[in-house]
Amino acid sequence: MKIAICAEADAAEPRVAGTPETVKKMKALGAEVAVEPGAGVKSGILDADYQAAGATVTRDAARDADIVLKVRRPNEMELTGYKKGAIVVAIMDPYGHQAALEALARAGVIAFAMELMPRITRAQVMDVLSSQANLAGYRAVIDAAAEYGRAFPMMMTPAGTVPAAKCFIMGVGVAGLQAIATARRLGAIVTATDVRPAVKEQVASLGAKFIAVEDEEFKQAETAGGYAKEMSKEYQAKQAALVAEHVKKQDIVITTALIPGRPAPRLITAEMVASMKPGSVIVDLAVERGGNVEGAKPGEVVEINGVKIVGHLNVAGRLAASSSALYAKNLLAFLEVLIDKKTKAIALNWDDEIVKATALTKDGAIVHPNFVPKTAA
Amino acid sequence: MKIAICAEADAAEPRVAGTPETVKKMKALGAEVAVEPGAGVKSGILDADYQAAGATVTRDAARDADIVLKVRRPNEMELTGYKKGAIVVAIMDPYGHQAALEALARAGVIAFAMELMPRITRAQVMDVLSSQANLAGYRAVIDAAAEYGRAFPMMMTPAGTVPAAKCFIMGVGVAGLQAIATARRLGAIVTATDVRPAVKEQVASLGAKFIAVEDEEFKQAETAGGYAKEMSKEYQAKQAALVAEHVKKQDIVITTALIPGRPAPRLITAEMVASMKPGSVIVDLAVERGGNVEGAKPGEVVEINGVKIVGHLNVAGRLAASSSALYAKNLLAFLEVLIDKKTKAIALNWDDEIVKATALTKDGAIVHPNFVPKTAA
Repeated sequence: MKIAICAEADAAEPRVAGTPETVKKMKALGAEVAVEPGAGVKSGILDADYQAAGATVTRDAARDADIVLKVRRPNEMELTGYKKGAIVVAIMDPYGHQAALEALARAGVIAFAMELMPRITRAQVMDVLSSQANLAGYRAVIDAAAEYGRAFPMMMTPAGTVPAAKCFIMGVGVAGLQAIATARRLGAIVTATDVRPAVKEQVASLGAKFIAVEDEEFKQAETAGGYAKEMSKEYQAKQAALVAEHVKKQDIVITTALIPGRPAPRLITAEMVASMKPGSVIVDLAVERGGNVEGAKPGEVVEINGVKIVGHLNVAGRLAASSSALYAKNLLAFLEVLIDKKTKAIALNWDDEIVKATALTKDGAIVHPNFVPKTAA
Repeated sequence: MKIAICAEADAAEPRVAGTPETVKKMKALGAEVAVEPGAGVKSGILDADYQAAGATVTRDAARDADIVLKVRRPNEMELTGYKKGAIVVAIMDPYGHQAALEALARAGVIAFAMELMPRITRAQVMDVLSSQANLAGYRAVIDAAAEYGRAFPMMMTPAGTVPAAKCFIMGVGVAGLQAIATARRLGAIVTATDVRPAVKEQVASLGAKFIAVEDEEFKQAETAGGYAKEMSKEYQAKQAALVAEHVKKQDIVITTALIPGRPAPRLITAEMVASMKPGSVIVDLAVERGGNVEGAKPGEVVEINGVKIVGHLNVAGRLAASSSALYAKNLLAFLEVLIDKKTKAIALNWDDEIVKATALTKDGAIVHPNFVPKTAA
């Protein structure tokens, strides 16, 4: 059983799908591990580090690999280098990229999309969306602090007091929670909001204030649990007005709202940007999916009337060493599902809900129900 | 009495010498305040903000000003625009710039150097070195976090633990103390060192560990007070060996050692840089004064075998809004020494130790004892 850790073809992707730590564990699972030269260098891992962990480093790593590990979906050129029937595991970004999925099918590989991992307890350790979102949430605050012309914490100095920054986190998923925690660590006054009233308690437990119109409808939804019914149109309008008023007074706004397979919801309009003070900073973590913020540009920091809108791409990748370490561990846990520990061989169980939920292609065809071409369904 | 807040000629200087808040207070002291257009824009202060505070905004602000406020020493071109006898207050950077001081003298202005403020209680509120160093210490940690490919805090995640960054602060003055506090806030494991054993207690009070050879000599020096005698050659050698060994294991090193009027001491040799892990980050806050770190380049982030050496210039200026606010308050406090509150007029008291310590030029000559040409002394 041969496993390859491949270098990323996309120069904008600094992460890597394996670390010396996971190489050792893969060897313990019975695999030979080959790494493409320089695969880890942007994550601070040298070829020699992989070799010391027991991997070989070679340009031909993928050629006869049974399992190919990558960060991003391989392009057609890369696919020509894999053998038929090889298992390919990556963040496949399948939504809206049907042609790329067809290329995976044509190449005859068994492709698994890590981001389709089911949200079950057993799969938590393989949850790449969470592992990367957590780091992106941290990094969003560091990026905000780097762009902001003032200090985050209140500072009492002989020359006077520097006030604490007011920081508003929109969307309280994994990224939002880590952004709240990090902004609090840095001494900001933190508020947050989310469409799910039930997260109010989590926000409070991190020392931040939840911003919501707390009427009867809210109170009922709060106790009804996390993914309760959508709020009424009237409530949404009242809440939008409250948020717009709140944003005006903020120094830092970080937006984190993503809906899998759909464009990011618009949370901040151009009008709201215009209402903010010069010197304020907005970080849009959804910029790759269309953006939560009107005026945000992918890969750019734009300034509109003195308000900076930060649209860095691949924010988890901006902490490449940490994000690679966690991603590699997510992959390792997934491999433990694919490999029989006794026989030390690949043993795909197509009835396993983890395998079913993540498999995109098999035997030359797209097999995932969300992506099977409609004519064939 | 007319006071001018001038724009900075140096494009690399984003700070400004007055804010709407200090404009109001200068008016209360009896001054008319004029501001050059755009002077505050890089600190997030618009011309309209100054006008709202009661200042006029005009290109001719300096022409008939009795007092000119600046961040940096005016160049010869700027000096031609000031009237003879005007008081000019700025961070004059006098050491090693004798020709520039002579130009100030020739222009017939009374130049005050804010960084020569005596270290007395009454002058604390005017201490620009402290107010700016404090912000530089905070910013050094933000800059380190922005360059570092890992997270600072320990993070326990389902995919495993991200370890806390190990952060070493060299030089525990105002900047070093704020760097310790900020790195601790962000969740790093922080150590620090200084040539003064007496600061061990301050370091410990911020939750960091002091790194020193704690032998008999150290213990005596520790109790002898802050600015005690220099340590023996033997002690220095032992301490250097300990620090070199410690640096190897660090993820982040921030150096802050400055000696007024002299080149910065070399704390980190090329050999020590080479001993660090790839991915480590060094921030040299002394890079403008020759640098504490071998290989640091002013204004650049250089990478040597995967170790980044950050040499940003004007680090306080990277937080322009905060640093301008504090600098402007330092200046305001100094103006209160120069202006008689009853007569609401300038009343220089040449016997005041604050005036004596900071005055560089007067009546066409250099008057500060440190800079009077030797032939004339």
